[in-house]
Amino acid sequence: MLIHPDRLFPAEPAARDVARRLYAEIRDLPIISPHGHTDPRWYAENEAFPDPATLFVVPDHYIFRMLYSQGVRLEDLGIPTKDGSPVEKDPRTIWRRFAENYHLFRGTPTRVWLDHTFETLFGFTERLSAKNADAYYDRIDEALRAPEFRPRALFERFRIEAIATTESSLDPLRHHETIRQSGWKGRVVTAYRPDPVVDPDFDGFRQNLVRFGEITGCDTSTWSGYLEAHRKRRAFFRDYGATSTDHGHPTARTADLSKANAEALFRRVSTGDSGSGDAELFRAQMLTEMAAMSVEDGMVMQIHPGSFRNHNNQIYSRFGRDMGADIPSQTDYVSALKPLLDRFGNEPNLTLILFTLDETSYSRELAPLAGHYPVLKLGPAWWFFDAPEGMRRFRELTTETAGFYNTVGFNDDTRAYLSIPARHDVARRVDCAYLANLVTTHRLNEDEAHEVAYDLAYRLAKEAYKL
Amino acid sequence: MLIHPDRLFPAEPAARDVARRLYAEIRDLPIISPHGHTDPRWYAENEAFPDPATLFVVPDHYIFRMLYSQGVRLEDLGIPTKDGSPVEKDPRTIWRRFAENYHLFRGTPTRVWLDHTFETLFGFTERLSAKNADAYYDRIDEALRAPEFRPRALFERFRIEAIATTESSLDPLRHHETIRQSGWKGRVVTAYRPDPVVDPDFDGFRQNLVRFGEITGCDTSTWSGYLEAHRKRRAFFRDYGATSTDHGHPTARTADLSKANAEALFRRVSTGDSGSGDAELFRAQMLTEMAAMSVEDGMVMQIHPGSFRNHNNQIYSRFGRDMGADIPSQTDYVSALKPLLDRFGNEPNLTLILFTLDETSYSRELAPLAGHYPVLKLGPAWWFFDAPEGMRRFRELTTETAGFYNTVGFNDDTRAYLSIPARHDVARRVDCAYLANLVTTHRLNEDEAHEVAYDLAYRLAKEAYKL
Amino acid sequence: MLIHPDRLFPAEPAARDVARRLYAEIRDLPIISPHGHTDPRWYAENEAFPDPATLFVVPDHYIFRMLYSQGVRLEDLGIPTKDGSPVEKDPRTIWRRFAENYHLFRGTPTRVWLDHTFETLFGFTERLSAKNADAYYDRIDEALRAPEFRPRALFERFRIEAIATTESSLDPLRHHETIRQSGWKGRVVTAYRPDPVVDPDFDGFRQNLVRFGEITGCDTSTWSGYLEAHRKRRAFFRDYGATSTDHGHPTARTADLSKANAEALFRRVSTGDSGSGDAELFRAQMLTEMAAMSVEDGMVMQIHPGSFRNHNNQIYSRFGRDMGADIPSQTDYVSALKPLLDRFGNEPNLTLILFTLDETSYSRELAPLAGHYPVLKLGPAWWFFDAPEGMRRFRELTTETAGFYNTVGFNDDTRAYLSIPARHDVARRVDCAYLANLVTTHRLNEDEAHEVAYDLAYRLAKEAYKL
Repeated sequence: MLIHPDRLFPAEPAARDVARRLYAEIRDLPIISPHGHTDPRWYAENEAFPDPATLFVVPDHYIFRMLYSQGVRLEDLGIPTKDGSPVEKDPRTIWRRFAENYHLFRGTPTRVWLDHTFETLFGFTERLSAKNADAYYDRIDEALRAPEFRPRALFERFRIEAIATTESSLDPLRHHETIRQSGWKGRVVTAYRPDPVVDPDFDGFRQNLVRFGEITGCDTSTWSGYLEAHRKRRAFFRDYGATSTDHGHPTARTADLSKANAEALFRRVSTGDSGSGDAELFRAQMLTEMAAMSVEDGMVMQIHPGSFRNHNNQIYSRFGRDMGADIPSQTDYVSALKPLLDRFGNEPNLTLILFTLDETSYSRELAPLAGHYPVLKLGPAWWFFDAPEGMRRFRELTTETAGFYNTVGFNDDTRAYLSIPARHDVARRVDCAYLANLVTTHRLNEDEAHEVAYDLAYRLAKEAYKL
Repeated sequence: MLIHPDRLFPAEPAARDVARRLYAEIRDLPIISPHGHTDPRWYAENEAFPDPATLFVVPDHYIFRMLYSQGVRLEDLGIPTKDGSPVEKDPRTIWRRFAENYHLFRGTPTRVWLDHTFETLFGFTERLSAKNADAYYDRIDEALRAPEFRPRALFERFRIEAIATTESSLDPLRHHETIRQSGWKGRVVTAYRPDPVVDPDFDGFRQNLVRFGEITGCDTSTWSGYLEAHRKRRAFFRDYGATSTDHGHPTARTADLSKANAEALFRRVSTGDSGSGDAELFRAQMLTEMAAMSVEDGMVMQIHPGSFRNHNNQIYSRFGRDMGADIPSQTDYVSALKPLLDRFGNEPNLTLILFTLDETSYSRELAPLAGHYPVLKLGPAWWFFDAPEGMRRFRELTTETAGFYNTVGFNDDTRAYLSIPARHDVARRVDCAYLANLVTTHRLNEDEAHEVAYDLAYRLAKEAYKL
Repeated sequence: MLIHPDRLFPAEPAARDVARRLYAEIRDLPIISPHGHTDPRWYAENEAFPDPATLFVVPDHYIFRMLYSQGVRLEDLGIPTKDGSPVEKDPRTIWRRFAENYHLFRGTPTRVWLDHTFETLFGFTERLSAKNADAYYDRIDEALRAPEFRPRALFERFRIEAIATTESSLDPLRHHETIRQSGWKGRVVTAYRPDPVVDPDFDGFRQNLVRFGEITGCDTSTWSGYLEAHRKRRAFFRDYGATSTDHGHPTARTADLSKANAEALFRRVSTGDSGSGDAELFRAQMLTEMAAMSVEDGMVMQIHPGSFRNHNNQIYSRFGRDMGADIPSQTDYVSALKPLLDRFGNEPNLTLILFTLDETSYSRELAPLAGHYPVLKLGPAWWFFDAPEGMRRFRELTTETAGFYNTVGFNDDTRAYLSIPARHDVARRVDCAYLANLVTTHRLNEDEAHEVAYDLAYRLAKEAYKL
């Protein structure tokens, strides 16, 4: 057996019993996945996944960053190079390298997710190792060819009620169009991620602005035309079900410039004539502009700040973005958000969901902010912290100040489709364990804990994201 | 039953037994409340509290900030506006709004304090809800009219041995005078809080200086006269039992300027001719001046830094200060306190109690500082952290470096009079739970744990604050 | 009984059983002590320790800082003054002062280490107190005269397989030479600590450079000669078994200047003609230079940043360095290390072990960095955090991102020779407790936990430090 029915529940028997009872009521609730990075092409084309290595290893930066940290070359894991120089092509060889290093994942969430997937989807009961690598490979490879392992079949098997993908402002949403026309009933919506046309430091920003003008028919060489392009594009995304926007900035800084200053700033960043600090200021201003549009159009706004992207120069040059070298950094919210909050902090029609990679901000800044401002809600433990201990700390550090109802349930935030049930299951179990602890120490009654468990597993995400 | 006799004790039976034994010895100890914000008028006039809403909801920013964060307007909770524009006046309506949102407080200390109060003072055994809101209201309303619910009767019932209120330097201490003349034996002392005449950013600072001169008979237009006014006023406060001073600065910064520079700085801030940084520098210098006076007069000094006050502009404009929009921010102590410590860090006759709203400083800065400097002691988990998890973290993060004896027991720090027994009870239980864990993991013997439990519940506060 | 066989194991019986089983397999493993500050003279001369106070109290800043924080004068503990002004000379009097304050150490690791030492080495079963201070003194004093309490006999009794001392670049390694020539088989190696010739703020830096030139025969007035002196001296240290270097900087900042800029900077700091920021920049550049040499010569590099040394001016003036007044401060790694990592982050032949005194960096910076960069490993919880709760937090905050295999086992880092077995025992127990918790909550199988326990107690330190 790879996964134990009591995993992640408290060890203490009385608390474990409470956790079991809470979990039994919510384990089969549908999955609301309001923020993630699965590929809409999967749902659109509904083709079989190619092979175990290409499915599990090559695209998962949680996996290859750990292997890389222990001396396994990315080339040997089949990660494609930017210049096309050769990398390992044999999926079985890649799989074996992964399998023989499976012990590296001890104590990590990757291990929990994978074991869950291996057992529940493929029926494995023996831990992956060098010894059984081929047996694993063969069984998974065979399964992937079956119709019940196609993306849409899995969608239904996973009981996904709604899932959001994330697309850039420039994305034509072709796959979403295909899904719509297919008549398939699975609810796959997009989310508006304008970073490529909002962040002057983004690769190709100025060309992106041109393209943004072309696809929207707006004059994106002017500030007003640029803003209009966002409005149009947000409407286009809403046509494909989008209920939210997402903003992945290095910091949470916001600004509220006068129109004249904003125009001048836009001129500088859009013509490449910008000085030190302009890029940061423009991103800051655009968060406030996006909030203004959300007040108008009702889209829920998400801020995902604090990642120092592509920290490893050599890896970035050779392999590109998202190669496991994004490192969190200290993130201030109290001063950073003030300009936006001064303008919109008390709007009845705005929801702004905050995420962090800096856990110090949970109790010091985020819970006090969300426990006061009507527009603010706390996103769940994110990225490096979407793991049992990280999730426990999130609750311990935020609940006493912000309560449960200023949080928004779980986001899986994943590219790894097969891990979605495992990730939601971990979140549900960890929340039940937390609640069981409150019940057992007599801080909450069990009838209430059942209600909260349901809210955290299902209702809060659905309502916060208007899904 | 609203409150369980084993609440907040460890779930594990052996540890729970130890916690029970420890707690049984200290549960009935008198309350030392060396830092708080109850209104001295209550003890002076000893009048009945008006009604449940005015007692519980309207003045408690823990309660209305949570309701506000979830969309309840402050006007609808009866919070008075600055311009006198109308707000809800019916206490029963306010109470119902609060009751129907009682679930928002799940997992928060407010819930624990209220349930304790509802059961022990008013005999409720059913959780507050929309359903029983009126029954609650009626029973509390009736009880409040009885003599045993008058402030002095409660004082005795709560077994308060000594309580400190907090008054500004400008306060005439009229209520304390009334208490003294009344012959009542309850020990209510004041504490010296000079922020309005020390912080150049305080509303009305320059007028406050003028008033400060009038009431002390000192020439507060000069640096030496201004310092003399503090000396006189501290003596006046000591006449009313004050043993401590309290300083609520945005940062913990201290300075130690030459007399000439301090004089020049005072001239600038007192005439309004001050530049950027002058206000912060003046507050910094004044902490060192206050320490100098404490070395002379023996008053215990408290620094409460790190709150970004009145973060929500709209709320501040409409409702004023203390409206639940104070947000913690990152706080440095290591560099900030150095000027003061360079001068007074090794004084045998000085006690300087440090508080924080930035938990990262517990283990990194505060415990190492208090575990070395003879003048420094650590105040308890404060404000957003005066809750079970927050208190547990305080012990876990400070004890291994600073031990127990560089801490000063508990402060309830509250405006909510009826919550005082509940708050001390929570602190006592959480400390017993922490000690029980040390005993059960064989890091401390049970005989010692009993001694420490007594010290944390009673002796350390009494001795540190000289009460 | 002073120490319980189940100390530091989880209270919950099932988890405790797992912890017992894990610990039973590793408790008697040899000690690898790859980083510490024991005096090589002890092993060289193998003389008896003088008396209990001189052995336990006078040299241990964990002990005297706590006593000092509670008002005991350092003079009264026999700490020598710089100017030779008189201090307590009677060891028994010092010992009594310590004994009567033994309660101050409740809840601290010092207490755990001492009780372990008192029971296992001297057979005490009654807690130290004022009452039995003399009996303790007499028994320890007598024992220290016996041959089995000589340093080499204890080395063998402690089952030390290898221990590293730490010497400055200027140290002649005379004691290591004596050990080598003695034919004794105990493995005592040195480690290269170049701070006195790398840190322009170090007392006597410029004279140190001159001396550095004399002992290496290099022209340390030039940049190339200075670097050559390091190379030579590193080789000399390797001759005495050194496998590592250690760098105790105020920050983790690194730099990668052009040769011309580095030369100019060296000229400024070595001639005393340096401006603001030059000292910090030079230390930063030297970390990168040291990494370059490690790539060549294979020495493992350790960075111990973040201590604000000698924070208490009065204590520093009167007693000198290392007097318990070193205070951690906020430490950034993400930006600070980038210049070094840009150059060497992907080197197969480099190991760079990072330590921190700022726990906020564990989950936010250090685990993500070590979980990606092949050269980076995480050192164990250090200094103020080498205690049960500190060690637990280290695992909880790093494992989910970096796993176990990007950490390097335990370092005792101590000057207190007799505490070495106790410190390793605490680390082993805390790791077993952590693993037991993973097993009991079904995140790890017990067979794997046994392997990890062995790795953390023995293998990882041995391999990471090439011992």
